[in-house]
Amino acid sequence: MTHPEILFLPNREAVRVPTGTPLLEAAQKAAVDLEAPCNGKGTCGKCRVQLVEGALPTPHHDELGHLSSAELASGVRLACRQEASGNSVVRLVSAGRGGERILCDGLLPAFELDPPVTKRLVVLPPATLEDNCDDLTRLERALGCELAGSVSLEFLRQLPHALRHSPAAFKEPAKACTESTNASRAGGWPVTVVFHGGRPIGIEPGDTRERCYGVAVDIGTTTVVAALIDLASGAELATASMVNPQKAHGLDVLSRIQRLKEEPAALDGLTALIRGGLDQLLGELCEEARVSRDDLYELVVAANATMTHLLLGIDPSAIGSSPYVPAFSGSVELPAAELGLLLARCARVYCLPAVSGYIGADIVAGLLASELESSDRPALLIDIGTNGEMVLGSAHGLTACSCAAGPALEGMNISCGMRAAQGAIERVELNAEVATRTIGDAPALGICGSGIIDAVAELVKVGAVLPSGRFDKSSAAGEAVSWRARLKNEGAGRFILAEAAADRGEVAVSQKDIRQVQLAKGAILSGILSLTAQLGIRPADIDRIYLAGAFGHRIRKESLGRLGMVPAECLDRAIPIGNSSKAGAIMALLSLKKRALAEQLARRVGYVELSCYPGYDRLFAEALAFPKERA
Amino acid sequence: MTHPEILFLPNREAVRVPTGTPLLEAAQKAAVDLEAPCNGKGTCGKCRVQLVEGALPTPHHDELGHLSSAELASGVRLACRQEASGNSVVRLVSAGRGGERILCDGLLPAFELDPPVTKRLVVLPPATLEDNCDDLTRLERALGCELAGSVSLEFLRQLPHALRHSPAAFKEPAKACTESTNASRAGGWPVTVVFHGGRPIGIEPGDTRERCYGVAVDIGTTTVVAALIDLASGAELATASMVNPQKAHGLDVLSRIQRLKEEPAALDGLTALIRGGLDQLLGELCEEARVSRDDLYELVVAANATMTHLLLGIDPSAIGSSPYVPAFSGSVELPAAELGLLLARCARVYCLPAVSGYIGADIVAGLLASELESSDRPALLIDIGTNGEMVLGSAHGLTACSCAAGPALEGMNISCGMRAAQGAIERVELNAEVATRTIGDAPALGICGSGIIDAVAELVKVGAVLPSGRFDKSSAAGEAVSWRARLKNEGAGRFILAEAAADRGEVAVSQKDIRQVQLAKGAILSGILSLTAQLGIRPADIDRIYLAGAFGHRIRKESLGRLGMVPAECLDRAIPIGNSSKAGAIMALLSLKKRALAEQLARRVGYVELSCYPGYDRLFAEALAFPKERA
Repeated sequence: MTHPEILFLPNREAVRVPTGTPLLEAAQKAAVDLEAPCNGKGTCGKCRVQLVEGALPTPHHDELGHLSSAELASGVRLACRQEASGNSVVRLVSAGRGGERILCDGLLPAFELDPPVTKRLVVLPPATLEDNCDDLTRLERALGCELAGSVSLEFLRQLPHALRHSPAAFKEPAKACTESTNASRAGGWPVTVVFHGGRPIGIEPGDTRERCYGVAVDIGTTTVVAALIDLASGAELATASMVNPQKAHGLDVLSRIQRLKEEPAALDGLTALIRGGLDQLLGELCEEARVSRDDLYELVVAANATMTHLLLGIDPSAIGSSPYVPAFSGSVELPAAELGLLLARCARVYCLPAVSGYIGADIVAGLLASELESSDRPALLIDIGTNGEMVLGSAHGLTACSCAAGPALEGMNISCGMRAAQGAIERVELNAEVATRTIGDAPALGICGSGIIDAVAELVKVGAVLPSGRFDKSSAAGEAVSWRARLKNEGAGRFILAEAAADRGEVAVSQKDIRQVQLAKGAILSGILSLTAQLGIRPADIDRIYLAGAFGHRIRKESLGRLGMVPAECLDRAIPIGNSSKAGAIMALLSLKKRALAEQLARRVGYVELSCYPGYDRLFAEALAFPKERA
Repeated sequence: MTHPEILFLPNREAVRVPTGTPLLEAAQKAAVDLEAPCNGKGTCGKCRVQLVEGALPTPHHDELGHLSSAELASGVRLACRQEASGNSVVRLVSAGRGGERILCDGLLPAFELDPPVTKRLVVLPPATLEDNCDDLTRLERALGCELAGSVSLEFLRQLPHALRHSPAAFKEPAKACTESTNASRAGGWPVTVVFHGGRPIGIEPGDTRERCYGVAVDIGTTTVVAALIDLASGAELATASMVNPQKAHGLDVLSRIQRLKEEPAALDGLTALIRGGLDQLLGELCEEARVSRDDLYELVVAANATMTHLLLGIDPSAIGSSPYVPAFSGSVELPAAELGLLLARCARVYCLPAVSGYIGADIVAGLLASELESSDRPALLIDIGTNGEMVLGSAHGLTACSCAAGPALEGMNISCGMRAAQGAIERVELNAEVATRTIGDAPALGICGSGIIDAVAELVKVGAVLPSGRFDKSSAAGEAVSWRARLKNEGAGRFILAEAAADRGEVAVSQKDIRQVQLAKGAILSGILSLTAQLGIRPADIDRIYLAGAFGHRIRKESLGRLGMVPAECLDRAIPIGNSSKAGAIMALLSLKKRALAEQLARRVGYVELSCYPGYDRLFAEALAFPKERA
């Protein structure tokens, strides 16, 4: 039996394992930090690696569900589903990370690569006294297109240097010339021209075609997730995420806008915070993927309308109060330098378009990823973050609405609420016993979004919370099942999930916490019912429900049902699709066609303003009640 | 007899004078600082005033030669040619200034006003819950044109504020609405949209149509001249000038380029210097004309190719050595903010196009002002500054060349050379006596460009300098005419124009000084002869010679003839046209048609590279000799 050597990048850990050993096991043996929550079962899709050298194996069936066609094509595989078969070099695609848990991944449908950013090598004949036209005219001739008036000042600044300083490394004039209109001239000036949507934006000395990257970013009110993408292969080379650095200025967009209304000068500060955050993520991405910032040519942004305004330094105040009007909702494309972002000097930023002040570009990106517009039967995309947004429709038409779910479902404004970090209760089960699970199996410090939803759902299940949302205090005096002792009758009542200890307080669910969850679920359910009514269909007609974002990823379907957050009829048609905002941003980064589709969708989606919608108040009141316990 | 009151702006000096008193006399009585070098003879054209209130009189014949039709239409007149006829308000257009004397004025031909920058008032219906489209879409509707993708980030930043903060001063909704497509809505959002070449670039709350200004600037290697123009009337409201602040880094473009070759990082510094200079001029112009920088919407730049590169921060090094290639030669249009210039936030900068590395946008601007392209018979535009450039041609075709005249004709690289400032000898006449005139009639400190030319011409005239360019030392021993004593035989010889005094040294012309002038005149004459040969015409066929710039303004035709700088046949066809670079920049600022013509001319003008021109060396050698004395 042979023992091939596996070299893991980026840190160059090497290990020899017997042929047939799963790469995941090899990685563990090499002490490489590769995340694998399902521990090799092929279900979590986390242990991604890119096979850089060695034979590229046919994808395993389990991999098809987790990896996009672009990823597969670029050699990305799951380490648990591939075996060592010969010496090979393997790059970790998504390194494990500690701290706060942020949902980075999103499902990508298959699509054709057609990135707006492309590179072309040309070799120019050097200037002579007989042929001394200016540099730009010389380049025009070689490219066979007019450039005057279409190139930037930065392009002109780079031009004379790029023409006259081709690196010594350029040693293939014969091959290069075949691409040039000046093929017959040897010893010319080789330059690589960077195009964006057909327009030349940059010029670099020598042949730099191998290095062409972009970044897709999802800017949420709460979190920011970015991915570094190889524009030639479509491979996702690195991801990075952070808590939105504006968090200190308000948890939701309304409180940030309120701050702006009180102090308009704060706009610059909020803008600087998110730009600084992006800059940090760019640094992390480049380090992880071993890519230079100079080789990043485009940043595609999917963000809600308020965050897009704040990123661009545009006052979003009018979004904050009736009639909720943004300054703009179309896409915006501009030089990255205008935002002070450090990418290639010629890099562009493209902000995906929004539908309205509360149906932002993140939802338009989600539409790209969920492909609602090509579905024959009605499907629902629902994204529950700090706000709840949803789009219902099919190839026959799309309608959206936004509801104020409040931050409860994210574990905010909850008495013991905390973010999804070490020590947060994320799972609760009430049967005879009270069973809880914390992130990192650490002692319980608080409760995060999925935890509070689970807790309330379970309390409804066992009847400790009535359909009206009130604690059934009488139940505390009932049979001697252990959880009953946790229900305390003081005041409005509270339910203890974890007792206090020497170094920490108790973690409990209060009556007010239950109200918060109830208001959120009522807002979401009444939104769904308003959309079905608007389209003239019944809830049962909804063919699929795409649950976008962390909420959809972490919530248990049972809890969704027990809370009555989606119509009971379509509970089993719910599909978590992960961070669809980031996924859509990647699609817009890699495909002009998808980008054009996003522009179309943003204009085509109808918008229902719930606050004006006839009968909404009644729908909302009805939607508040929890379903009768079925346990 | 009545005594009408004349109020002089900007300083509000008022005076009462008898009806019929010339305004210049009234100004003098009011102690207003109004320059009038010809002292009221109507020949210098300096005592410009704008009649702001009161009847607008028919222009006097003398005024037609000094004032453009745009100036006349906006009420600009010469104070010496207009009389007090009733109470009136008069604004000083060009206030007197001390310090260095820089030629600011240039002749403007008549042309139609059609400025790229225009303003339009629209009144938008405010947003409601039922009609809550975004601000940009609302504006699109009112303007009846698509804006998405065509407006800048800065425009979007201004938009929400402009719509919601119309000044209290806006009190004419009825009148305003007639211009709006939403004419029927009262109490709307009035905004003024600033257009540039049909594209919206800025938006301002309320009605700001009255305030719309631009700046034209001529950036020479040696001096910078700027004019503030009312874009609605075409009136020149102020001029300002300065020595090019890059002077410390080299007197001519070649020495500045040399510095860059030695230290490429110096580019930023040179760029900052000229931008800082422009900023200072903008401040002076605004102060003089009482105009806010926020109301300046465009800056049009006419500069030689090297100065255009340096202004834009583009390395001009390749212009400095064979094959003399600029990075670009077409026009460049970009936001003023990209150059760090403080005008209106939405302001644009337009740099006129060049023909080649040595036939810059200043010459293209000069072509606009001299209208060579519409002439039936061959005419010559010649601009002698630190370099000598000339264009010969007619409606049938234009050809240009550039010659290294050197800075001698500007009083530089001359043993006692100085700029045209207080104390510079500017006129010399040698007959029996030596007669000199200094600027400001101050004691002689040195000799400026027109002075050295006069001096050498007069020395040739009296035979003290031979056609070969050498001092005729023998003449010093001749008849006892007083100037002979001034010719000193030590060394190569020198001629004393002003004796040394206690507080200053002598001012003299050395043999080397004469050589410098001789090389310059040889370069210019051989350039002219090359162009005529190239076009297949004789020098005598040249119908007019337009002398652009300070050189053409200050030189005496007699001296031109005595030096043999232009062919003797066409000496009497020479016309000084002043600062034609600034004049052309003003034309491009005020007329889209003239701007388009400049783009055309830059492409149409042929360029003769003298260093490659067959037989040029012989032509140059022949052109060096001074004409035989005629005295």
